[in-house]
Amino acid sequence: MDKGLQIEQDSFAIIDSATDLSRFNSAEQVIARKLIHTTGDTEFAELTCILSGAIEAGVAALRRGAPIICDVEMVRVGITRRYLQSYGNQVHCFISQPDVLTRAAADNLTRAETAMLYAAERYPDAIFAIGNAPTALLKLLELTATGRMQPAFVAGLPVGFVKAEESKDLLRQTTIPHVTNRGPKGGSPCAATVINGLLVVLNDLLSAE
Amino acid sequence: MDKGLQIEQDSFAIIDSATDLSRFNSAEQVIARKLIHTTGDTEFAELTCILSGAIEAGVAALRRGAPIICDVEMVRVGITRRYLQSYGNQVHCFISQPDVLTRAAADNLTRAETAMLYAAERYPDAIFAIGNAPTALLKLLELTATGRMQPAFVAGLPVGFVKAEESKDLLRQTTIPHVTNRGPKGGSPCAATVINGLLVVLNDLLSAE
Repeated sequence: MDKGLQIEQDSFAIIDSATDLSRFNSAEQVIARKLIHTTGDTEFAELTCILSGAIEAGVAALRRGAPIICDVEMVRVGITRRYLQSYGNQVHCFISQPDVLTRAAADNLTRAETAMLYAAERYPDAIFAIGNAPTALLKLLELTATGRMQPAFVAGLPVGFVKAEESKDLLRQTTIPHVTNRGPKGGSPCAATVINGLLVVLNDLLSAE
Repeated sequence: MDKGLQIEQDSFAIIDSATDLSRFNSAEQVIARKLIHTTGDTEFAELTCILSGAIEAGVAALRRGAPIICDVEMVRVGITRRYLQSYGNQVHCFISQPDVLTRAAADNLTRAETAMLYAAERYPDAIFAIGNAPTALLKLLELTATGRMQPAFVAGLPVGFVKAEESKDLLRQTTIPHVTNRGPKGGSPCAATVINGLLVVLNDLLSAE
């Protein structure tokens, strides 16, 4: 076995012996286990929140080739490209687009907020992966509430002490298919690993068909 | 003030009221505060380990334009490019180089280990930022112990339950100028933020000169 893969499998065995993921179904466990693996933090066993049916919705969207919109470049590069090739999903991050920079300055919005507006105009029913900017998630929620977006799936795990927890609490109150977490923790690797976990679930599903 | 910057400053105020960073000097506090900000995890106030004099060594290396070698792409894209332009530092990640892939398969090493060997042959006295792969840090320590590398500074914060803690414990026993952490936590944002923190300290230093 590939040495990197062996380390991952050993990690998963340690995680399973150290945590109780029994409140999740088997597809949800793939996601929760990957969140703990990515952060080295067993607290994610308790902090992870997955809306019922969200994994199925995310997997179906991936399978039909839905684009994946990331709030920051770290999320974009954290998504494993070699899995995605089979389904034709594009992975985008608009935060450094010249149009976005100009508009953010003109409208006194964060670049992350403006990038969500930009995404809503082009890919309103995409998969979204938000790991850094609470303002991106808050803007997504506003655009969804006003009918300008219908996200197929949201990995919403922005990190930090200002607005991150609040934005994730609001996401949990919606019916948008989502994975999120309680509290200030989170981050780009968390958002990326949720998408990579959906790809694992999809690959398992296709192998079983 | 730029809205993104305002959020960062508010976060730092919350961190300062919630943690005790008094065991660190002022430059070290910049780094510890950024680690807590990046992870949303106040435990980093206790987990962060900074070798005495390490920040000065890292800042001096940055100032002389030393290249920065990252274990994975997520670390590379997490380093703020606009600050670096002033000093001419290159930021490299070799994990997906075709040479590295071929050699890893031939030698039954992880890609991360092979990328460190590749770096040692080209940039033995670089700044290193390791946020993902314990095997990269272990290889760096081996190459340093055998005199094939003399890292100017190491941000060594690989994450996970297999070898990560062990690799960081070994780093702490060396005199390589380093920032690391205790336990399995860590990750790409941690490694990137340590380098970004050095850039903040350097900019403050230059403004004061």
